[in-house]
Order: sequence, then structure tokens, then C-alpha cells
Amino acid sequence: MKRPTIIDIAREVGVSKAAVSYALNGRAGVSPQTRERILDVAAAMGWRASSAARALSNDRAANIGIVLARSPEVLRTEPFFMQMLAGLEQTLSAEGFSLQLALAADTGTELDTYRRWWAERRVDGVVLTDLRVSDPRPELLRELGTPAVFFGTAGPMPGIPVLRADEDEAIRSAITHLAELGHRRIGHVQGPADLQHTVRRADALRRAVGETPGLSVHHASGDYTEEGGVRATRRLLSAPNPPTAVIYDNDVMAVATVVHAEELGVRVPADLSVLAWDDSMLCQVVRPAITAFAHSVVVDSATAARMLLELIETGSADDGELSPRKLMPRGSTAPAPGN
Amino acid sequence: MKRPTIIDIAREVGVSKAAVSYALNGRAGVSPQTRERILDVAAAMGWRASSAARALSNDRAANIGIVLARSPEVLRTEPFFMQMLAGLEQTLSAEGFSLQLALAADTGTELDTYRRWWAERRVDGVVLTDLRVSDPRPELLRELGTPAVFFGTAGPMPGIPVLRADEDEAIRSAITHLAELGHRRIGHVQGPADLQHTVRRADALRRAVGETPGLSVHHASGDYTEEGGVRATRRLLSAPNPPTAVIYDNDVMAVATVVHAEELGVRVPADLSVLAWDDSMLCQVVRPAITAFAHSVVVDSATAARMLLELIETGSADDGELSPRKLMPRGSTAPAPGN
Repeated sequence: MKRPTIIDIAREVGVSKAAVSYALNGRAGVSPQTRERILDVAAAMGWRASSAARALSNDRAANIGIVLARSPEVLRTEPFFMQMLAGLEQTLSAEGFSLQLALAADTGTELDTYRRWWAERRVDGVVLTDLRVSDPRPELLRELGTPAVFFGTAGPMPGIPVLRADEDEAIRSAITHLAELGHRRIGHVQGPADLQHTVRRADALRRAVGETPGLSVHHASGDYTEEGGVRATRRLLSAPNPPTAVIYDNDVMAVATVVHAEELGVRVPADLSVLAWDDSMLCQVVRPAITAFAHSVVVDSATAARMLLELIETGSADDGELSPRKLMPRGSTAPAPGN
Repeated sequence: MKRPTIIDIAREVGVSKAAVSYALNGRAGVSPQTRERILDVAAAMGWRASSAARALSNDRAANIGIVLARSPEVLRTEPFFMQMLAGLEQTLSAEGFSLQLALAADTGTELDTYRRWWAERRVDGVVLTDLRVSDPRPELLRELGTPAVFFGTAGPMPGIPVLRADEDEAIRSAITHLAELGHRRIGHVQGPADLQHTVRRADALRRAVGETPGLSVHHASGDYTEEGGVRATRRLLSAPNPPTAVIYDNDVMAVATVVHAEELGVRVPADLSVLAWDDSMLCQVVRPAITAFAHSVVVDSATAARMLLELIETGSADDGELSPRKLMPRGSTAPAPGN
């Protein structure tokens, strides 16, 4: 059977060639009824050539890529990425774009994925997050010429629009909250050491602690998992002068501490106050509920998607700001022992 | 600049045309080092024609599609779909396949997505879940000829390999557990009424309850959200002879009941036992922890991905079974009041 062209389909349906093109490419410009009819006829005629035609005509893939560079174990407990996917997809689907997803266990695999996606014109651009301390991704994407938006960086990035995160103010509000409750020795269970925001938050904590005489901060590195959070907390608590409050770089590690408090030999919040960086349903349902930073991953991800679509459309996009984090005091933070 | 061909790239790198083809299509057959070199050279030469070439030569898209047909609100709290994506991706990425993702607010949008993906050769096949009571998707996919695997059906499906879920045995173990604790009136807070497994579980519950004299079951429909779970529970508890134990069709609704027990005027488990269909970290961290059915969404999704790859490769795949659910008794189920 001869492969049908857009003209064949237009003739069969009795609409314009443009209407067929709109319908087949998922763009606005035809009514839902007409779109449905066109897609039905196109499918019945065995029409299959669109992505080929698109690629050869330098048209769009109508696809945005995101590589999730965490272990499957973290992915399936930490709500952050599902919120991010939901936010991206809400914006993208309204514009007729889809989301291309891959898991990458290491940076080499992640870089290969970007190369392959771009070489195959599988995506029109990518959203990145979790800037690493030494991160080869921005350079690769600049080399490839792949439009990219970076979610959650400290500052601007040459050639790549970013959504900036101002974490100093959030960290300062956490320290103020704990200092007002009489805490002097503050622990910090960090995320993976190769993530730039892990380093950034530790720096911001040291700065904020330095502004208040008599405070000290003690770091222990975690890995975003329950086990890692409990292990790091145990290390902090075994010090001669253990902290009376601990800030956790994600929700899962803070929740694990509350749940395993008895094994750790502490009562939360009587002996130990617990504060989580990422609020989520997990923080809200444990008892005591966990004081955490509310933030709108869904809203911010929708913003990132809009920036990327603008970049693809016009060749440039302005930097943006992540929505500010707001401290939600709950039962897990209380006056320091002896206060 | 002339568009480079695979032959140009092979000459430049000094390898065979086949090696270039393997590397560019993400297939086995070249060493990681060679693959990297080929991709670098191809990118530097501006090679972009692969998906066009693939589409025109009837080769693979190396892409599997999944449409998530739930509200963004449910998606970002319920861990089920993230576990599913993690399981699919683990298998797919090992085979050089990517995952194409879309959100669909309604069935019309979901059907359009399958039509468009297939018309554009964007995917080689799709994984479906949540069979609806009246579900137009299997027929559409058969019409289109799109390879598809259905996750979690009661029985076989013409032309579409399925992963069958035997829920009778799981439901029976829940009823036995509750009956042994002395519960006679059992509530059931259901998922959305248009999902076939909602109906199926209600039927299975009625059958299991019917096998034990003196038991009765009382249904209330929920929507998988916290608010919906609390509302449905309130309806059940306002009956003249309220149930002393409630089975919830997902984790989020069960957790919401435990967290809002005081507002609901009950103590869990003293007045009300709570049992959840889907185990997750949420069930494990609330107090009392929730008796729930453990099941391996990640493992089962990996199985679904393997079935779909086999179907794409060979044109057929056998039906499979979801791994059995195992009841994990925890603190939320206890002897019925007065027992």
C-alpha cells in the first residue's frame, strides 16, 4: 500500500492540508471533533511518516527530556521527582509536548543519554536538576547545542537559563527558629556529597550559624535514604556533646529519624528537635509531625517547562527564581533540653 | 554543510558502518569506548537523521509509552506510579529503550495520545494499567496495531498480553485476619468507581465475607485522595451500626484516616481497625503503622517491560501473573471493641 501523504488525508477527511498538519502534530487550530476524525482517518490509512517528516524538515520532536539520576530506591520513596514530573507534564501537555524519561545510574550513562536523544532528534530540549560539584552536563549540552533549563542553581550559568534557589534566607529562618527554642548545637544530615546544593546548604548553614554567637553546626553525610539518615544521626548523637536539633537535607531521612527515635535512644522533640528541608505528605503524617520547608515543586517545575518552551521557540529565555521556601513549624521542633 | 551519513561517520572514526549503526541506535555490539567516540564524532559532524532514517526504514523508536491517567494531586502523593516508572525504566534502559510519558486528565486525551504516538512512530509499544469498567483503550490499540501489555487485569484479554492479578486470595487473607480479631462489620473505602479493580475488589470482598457466617461488608466510595478517604470513612462511621474495621483501596486514604482519627471520633485500633491495599513508606511511618498488603510494583513493572519488549521483538508474549500480595499485620489492626 502506498504511504498516504497529508494531502491524501486532507482529501479523504474533506479538510485543509493545514488542518491535517495541526491535528497530526497535536497543535491548536482544529476542533477536538475534527482532530479526532483526522486522526482516525490517518490511522486507518496507515499514516506513519510524521516523525520522519519532522526530522527531515528540521521541525520539532514535541518532546522534552529529563534524566533521573538517582537510585531506583530513592526514586520510589522520595516524592520530589514525581512532583517534578507532574509539574512538567501539566505545562507540556497543554502545549502538545510529551516528556521523555530515562533513569541513569551514573554520569557517563546520563551524558550518553543526552547525546543519543539529541543525535536522534528525540527531544527539543532537556530539564536538568541536582547540579553536581563538578558537573560535565552544562558543557556537553552547550557543545551539542541542546536547549536546556537548569532547575535550582545558586547563580546564573553561561548559555543556560536557570531557576535560581535562594537558600540563604530559608536556612536563616531555620536557624532563627531553632535558636529561639534555645538550641545551641545544631546537627546537619546532608545529602550526597557530589551535589552542589549539598555543599551550598552546608555553607549557608555555617554562615547563618556564624551570625548568632554561641551556636555551632555539626555535619554528617547521608544519602537521602532511610538507612543513611538513621546512620548519620547515630554518628551525630555519639559525639561527646551531641546536637539537640538536626536539620535534614530531605524528608525521608528526617522521617526515618522520627520513626527510629527509640532505637537511636532519643525522644523527639524532648531530646532532639528534627527539621526537614523538603516538606511532603511523609512529614505531615508521622508523629510528631515534622517541621519542614514547604515549597512548590509542582509550580516551580511548571515554570521550568515554560522557560524551556520559550527557549526552544525564541532561542532565549530569562533566568527565573524558585518560589521561596516557607518554614512550617510542627511538633518535631521544641525547646532544647534544659531550656 | 552536507548532512553526514553513517558511512561518513564510519570513515571519520575508522570503524565499520555496522558499528556506527549500533552506537547511534544504542544497541549492543560496540565497546563503551567506541560508542562514545562514534557519538562524539557524529555530534561534531552534526548528524541528526537517525529518527528520520528509523521511521522511514520501519526500524524501532526504541521507546515505550505510558500514559498516567490520574490527577496531578494523586500522582504526587501516591507512590504507586513512581514505583512503576522506576521498575519499567530499570528494564528498558538495560535494553537501550527510553520511556515516553504523558499525563491525561480524561480518556479522550489518553486515546488521542496513543493515536498520536503511534502515528508519529514515537513509541514501539505501550504499557497500560487501571483497566476501566468500560474501557475503549484495548480496542483502540488493537485497531492501531500498537503492541501493548496490560498491567493488573482479572483475566486474559484478546490480542493483548496481560499481567493478571489474583485478588481473591489477598482479600480472603484480609477477611480471615479481621475475623480472627473478632470483627463482624467490615467497611470498604473504595477507589474511583470507573476502575475495574475497584469493582473487582468489592466483588471479592463480598465473596470472602459470604464464606464466613455473621460477617457483613459496607462500601463507601473514595477517590484515592486524603480528603476523599476521610469523607468516605465519616460516612461509614455515621451508620447506625458502624463497621469496626475498614479496608482501604490505597495507602493514602488509610493513612489519612489514621492521621485524622481524632476528628473522626475514633481511636485506631481501639475503636477502628485500618487495613490498606497498597503498602508503602507512608503506611510504615504513621503510628499506629498500618496493616497493609506488601507487593512488588517495581518487580512487576520490570516484568511488564520484559513482556512488552518480547512482544515487540517476536510478535507475541505470554500472559504473566503479578507477584502475590502478602498481608503485613501491623499496629492498625487489633481485636474488635468488646472482644
